[in-house]
Amino acid sequence: MTNGTETLQVAAHGDREIVAERVFNAPRERVFQAFTDPELIPQWWGRRQDTVTLDKFDPREGGDWRFVTEGPDGTGAFRGTFRVIDPPEKVEQTFEWEGMPGYIAVDSATFEDLGDGRTKVRVRTLFHTTEERDGMLASGMEIGMGESYERLDELLAAETSA
Amino acid sequence: MTNGTETLQVAAHGDREIVAERVFNAPRERVFQAFTDPELIPQWWGRRQDTVTLDKFDPREGGDWRFVTEGPDGTGAFRGTFRVIDPPEKVEQTFEWEGMPGYIAVDSATFEDLGDGRTKVRVRTLFHTTEERDGMLASGMEIGMGESYERLDELLAAETSA
Repeated sequence: MTNGTETLQVAAHGDREIVAERVFNAPRERVFQAFTDPELIPQWWGRRQDTVTLDKFDPREGGDWRFVTEGPDGTGAFRGTFRVIDPPEKVEQTFEWEGMPGYIAVDSATFEDLGDGRTKVRVRTLFHTTEERDGMLASGMEIGMGESYERLDELLAAETSA
Repeated sequence: MTNGTETLQVAAHGDREIVAERVFNAPRERVFQAFTDPELIPQWWGRRQDTVTLDKFDPREGGDWRFVTEGPDGTGAFRGTFRVIDPPEKVEQTFEWEGMPGYIAVDSATFEDLGDGRTKVRVRTLFHTTEERDGMLASGMEIGMGESYERLDELLAAETSA
């Protein structure tokens, strides 16, 4: 049983990593789908104030992705390349904010079936340097990620009740 | 005075780096130009057996590059993004072989004026992991880089005599 929103945990690990963990009240296959379906991603990815458009989205090993965000703070873009797509357990991809081009992290997301209808998502992000890792932590990523995951909660709840 | 070809030195540094050093018998400005001029790069970049075409080449901070190679072993491609362009001292860019997409290193090349008409180029390559670094060392990069730099010697000598 769960009562409302789960807690996002974000922590620095080692010299060059961030690990984020979050539980979702939905089966693993559905959570995995939300992370890899180009129809679903714009419904939850990013902050509420922004509209997200998938400029590229090729979810296979070696495929590229690029998301464009538009909102009150202006237009931005993020891009990367998928390294692993292993449904429903793992997605690994590079992650680059085009505002700082050429500074590229690797996101490894794993999806764990908790056995009670819930799923734990763990995202490990590896940077080239400690400075890049600390810059990401200082950027407010935790706020944006928390809001994004709340939107995903709502999407998963709407799908369940539909 | 120099007599013929200088020696390329390639060595692992720390856990995740490769450092390559090579002296060229030409002034720093000319060596820097050879690394950043889209007319000159195809004349020396890569192995002799391959033809190199610059699909993208935007030498400014945040600009992308992509080189396509064609030869007896088939077609390949390399790509990246410039992070620093600081003539005639430094070029920093990401480096990715499209045969292993999403595995991205950072190349920092510095150009040192040796004061006698020669220039020392030092390329430090930083990987996300030790495994990626060791894979690059095992790939034969030293042979390819050595041949490429011999071609650059010849290009610089031809320019001097022209």
